[in-house]
Amino acid sequence: MKARGEFGFIAQSLAPLAQGYAGAFGLTDDAAALAGKPGLVVTSDTLVEGVHFRSDDPAALIAKKAIRVNVSDLVAMAAIPHAVMLSIVWPAKIDGVFQQEFVRGLKDDLDHYGFPLIGGDTTRGGDRLVVTVTAFGEVTNPLRRNAARPGDGLFVTGTIGDAFLGLRADTLGLGQSHREFLAQRYLLPSPPVELVGTLGKFANSGLDISDGLVADAEHLSLASSVCIEIQLDNIPVSTSAEAWLATLPDRKAGLVEMATGGDDYEMLFTASRDHEARLLVAAATAGVQITKIGQVEHGKGVNVRAGSGEIVQILRTGFTHF
Amino acid sequence: MKARGEFGFIAQSLAPLAQGYAGAFGLTDDAAALAGKPGLVVTSDTLVEGVHFRSDDPAALIAKKAIRVNVSDLVAMAAIPHAVMLSIVWPAKIDGVFQQEFVRGLKDDLDHYGFPLIGGDTTRGGDRLVVTVTAFGEVTNPLRRNAARPGDGLFVTGTIGDAFLGLRADTLGLGQSHREFLAQRYLLPSPPVELVGTLGKFANSGLDISDGLVADAEHLSLASSVCIEIQLDNIPVSTSAEAWLATLPDRKAGLVEMATGGDDYEMLFTASRDHEARLLVAAATAGVQITKIGQVEHGKGVNVRAGSGEIVQILRTGFTHF
Repeated sequence: MKARGEFGFIAQSLAPLAQGYAGAFGLTDDAAALAGKPGLVVTSDTLVEGVHFRSDDPAALIAKKAIRVNVSDLVAMAAIPHAVMLSIVWPAKIDGVFQQEFVRGLKDDLDHYGFPLIGGDTTRGGDRLVVTVTAFGEVTNPLRRNAARPGDGLFVTGTIGDAFLGLRADTLGLGQSHREFLAQRYLLPSPPVELVGTLGKFANSGLDISDGLVADAEHLSLASSVCIEIQLDNIPVSTSAEAWLATLPDRKAGLVEMATGGDDYEMLFTASRDHEARLLVAAATAGVQITKIGQVEHGKGVNVRAGSGEIVQILRTGFTHF
Repeated sequence: MKARGEFGFIAQSLAPLAQGYAGAFGLTDDAAALAGKPGLVVTSDTLVEGVHFRSDDPAALIAKKAIRVNVSDLVAMAAIPHAVMLSIVWPAKIDGVFQQEFVRGLKDDLDHYGFPLIGGDTTRGGDRLVVTVTAFGEVTNPLRRNAARPGDGLFVTGTIGDAFLGLRADTLGLGQSHREFLAQRYLLPSPPVELVGTLGKFANSGLDISDGLVADAEHLSLASSVCIEIQLDNIPVSTSAEAWLATLPDRKAGLVEMATGGDDYEMLFTASRDHEARLLVAAATAGVQITKIGQVEHGKGVNVRAGSGEIVQILRTGFTHF
């Protein structure tokens, strides 16, 4: 791990997080030795202030989000957390209090996921915070995007649209508890890491929902050369999102907004009909809510259908950061 | 690989660089499967515009530098290049021409080092370019910083101080060919990847010189709990650096500046006296210039000695980026 002047920060704040992983060398060497084992996967996601989080978001939650968007990618591969690399560019405005809070959140999540920190880089520069996490996961059969089969059921974990609403929680005219729940869902994704074993066993294909349910369904459709059918009314929504939908003149339009809003960090996956019963039992046993929202057909593209069966026009399928 | 809106850029420019590495999945999945083999090491370095490179440095050379500072870390571990992950934050000012040139430089170096690109992330945001490369290397016995032994000879590769002079090449009063040589040495590090086998065979300890020869010798001294003795006059300098030294009233002060300037991306390593003859032959066979500049003693700290034997006072041991 290159220090570039932050020896104290690394030795005091980061090195303790590397304990217990022999190949991390206490973050004192140029590179870390990975435990060489078959079935290692690696993913990397960068969070940029003003793009992926807001300038006034709490430091600890920014650190957790940086970890969790990567955990989400690992879960999407049916991989369990193995280790992470961390690269941070601190803007001049960042002070020691912010850094401490960042490390506190980081340590919480590394402990939570059983993730040792094995290296990385920190630098000063620029006008905004940039955090890159590279995460390694262990997996026997990586879950791919390109293996959805016509006839598969289409499933999602958790509830959809909360983070989209959470980003504008104060403008929705909801009570405090709903506002807080939704805001938290934006600030702190909870990728369903408990479902990894179940996904590995029963899913044919899958990915995480980061750009929006419909946009990510399009990615699945493209990679697998299939048509994805989604029943709008089957999309699972939280009690707080339901409270918002109840205030709208057009519930369907509200559901479409939530299905195209992004930042869910839930899973979208497909499984054969033969496995459906066992899948539902396994997910319930793992304590993860899963909901069948449609199916995979021959063809291409994504059809979102209202209760009456007609295809809902979607103008903007998801959120792109630029 | 998460696209975050840059699907075209990734599909057209980056995905071709991932060909031939099955586990990269053509950069279309959430994570890449690493060939799980024992002896894999991973390193990560972030380059920030205005800190690690200048705003008007050529895009292709910025990409190459991002790769090469990581190659330097791998060589320092006696590891050969295996694969890289790349994360880029593009500021608004970056246009398609710059991106194309960046990718051209990237491809050149990935081809040169036999590095497949296996994943990463790209985002828009902020006021300056940020490039993070995470690099994997293959190695049987990682070369550590903590294994220098009293009695070892101290060696460097290449020549020292060129990059430091290259950063201010136009202010040195030198002729054009010297200016160009030194400027190039700053813009384009050339870590001695050809020496990996030799280092693995004969070196006891080593690291790359990025902060400055004296500063990195201090890192070695600290990690190994030894004293490092450096003979100032034995430090290898290029013909162009020699031309600059010849203009100075105080050659010793010039050498000290070069030994504390940083950005060399050469190797500093130690080897037993028993191996010295075979080490020199192996390096010559590999075509890499190595020079003995001192030795390892019992004790602590770094002593830089002039020809007369007296210890040279060093006020600033190296360059820290903040």
